[in-house]
Amino acid sequence: MNTAVVLLSGGLDSATCLAIARDQGYRCHTIAFDYGQRTRSELDAAVRVSQALGAESHRVIELGLGTIGGSALTDHAIEVPEEGGDGIPVTYVPARNTVFLSLSLGLAEVVDASAIYIGVNAVDYSGYPDCRPEFIDAFQTLAGLATKAGVEGHPIEIATPLMRLSKADIIRRGTELGLDYGLTVSCYQADEAGRACGRCDSCRLRRQGFEQALVKDPTIYR
Amino acid sequence: MNTAVVLLSGGLDSATCLAIARDQGYRCHTIAFDYGQRTRSELDAAVRVSQALGAESHRVIELGLGTIGGSALTDHAIEVPEEGGDGIPVTYVPARNTVFLSLSLGLAEVVDASAIYIGVNAVDYSGYPDCRPEFIDAFQTLAGLATKAGVEGHPIEIATPLMRLSKADIIRRGTELGLDYGLTVSCYQADEAGRACGRCDSCRLRRQGFEQALVKDPTIYR
Repeated sequence: MNTAVVLLSGGLDSATCLAIARDQGYRCHTIAFDYGQRTRSELDAAVRVSQALGAESHRVIELGLGTIGGSALTDHAIEVPEEGGDGIPVTYVPARNTVFLSLSLGLAEVVDASAIYIGVNAVDYSGYPDCRPEFIDAFQTLAGLATKAGVEGHPIEIATPLMRLSKADIIRRGTELGLDYGLTVSCYQADEAGRACGRCDSCRLRRQGFEQALVKDPTIYR
Repeated sequence: MNTAVVLLSGGLDSATCLAIARDQGYRCHTIAFDYGQRTRSELDAAVRVSQALGAESHRVIELGLGTIGGSALTDHAIEVPEEGGDGIPVTYVPARNTVFLSLSLGLAEVVDASAIYIGVNAVDYSGYPDCRPEFIDAFQTLAGLATKAGVEGHPIEIATPLMRLSKADIIRRGTELGLDYGLTVSCYQADEAGRACGRCDSCRLRRQGFEQALVKDPTIYR
């Protein structure tokens, strides 16, 4: 049985990613990041999803991104916009996926994982540069050079099963695998109970996804 | 005046790197990582060095690497060896430079830096895979794809001025630039006052460097 590290944000995409990794027969270690995000309920959701899908372990890595600043998601002085604009949005956290993948790479070395699953998506990607396939390819190259495993000839695979799927496709896939999306939180400004605002970019994409997938939306809006 | 982010560990190499970046005319923002390392006095040394060399700002990023484990430097159950062996040593922190560079990349975006200075070294590198030039090249490619600046055609340069220098060369260069190495701490198990053990790998390389450079060693051994 092969081992994988799965990045879990508490949201819909990463939960689907874990369901896919489990379906593909991986023993999974999940990892979440406490980086001063507005939505603490995301972290609770990640714990629920990890347990519900039978992961071997779940780790929350403390990460002082607030000290760096520069994003509406970690700097509470910047407002979260209610609709998407052009270009890279203020909800972009500088180098976030690079940082998250790097820490996952460290964990993959320690638990001797052969793959890292990350739910990045180039279709509904909201304009983040670090969600594109060329970014993932560059990280794959780096992973082969950065680690013991890579040096010894077994580079860790960066698996992105959602890369080419629409939000509706993702929801259909997770639903087929029996995933309960009621466990997940996607809203950028969910309240402590995990109830969504229904208005931010992330809520908009999620709601649309359920509509297009013809799957009942289990999200609780406040 | 161009801006740079400089990774500062509190040790000899990164202090020299900062001295070089300052000499090359950069306005510098320094960044250190509190990752549960044994040697807290490293972090104090980084603050001293940043101030002494006139950096614009200094940030300490909290980083829960202890949660990941797998290294004698963060897992206190693993003993620090007193002499170097073959291969990758137990003091290797999984994916450390990948993680540190990623966070520095985030800061570089926020402070609008055109370069990141890191004191990696392929000569006296103690067998860490993430100190090699091919690793840095791969990270340079990644940086061009991962960030706003890269997407907009201004990739952030990863500067490694120490890559090809021996420890003695590094010490000679820093001494020319007026750097006081008494401010720095290299020992893997320095005490709270920053006094070195004189026996670990890092102490051995440092002491040898001063001898070969014919520069008086200001290190305080306990």
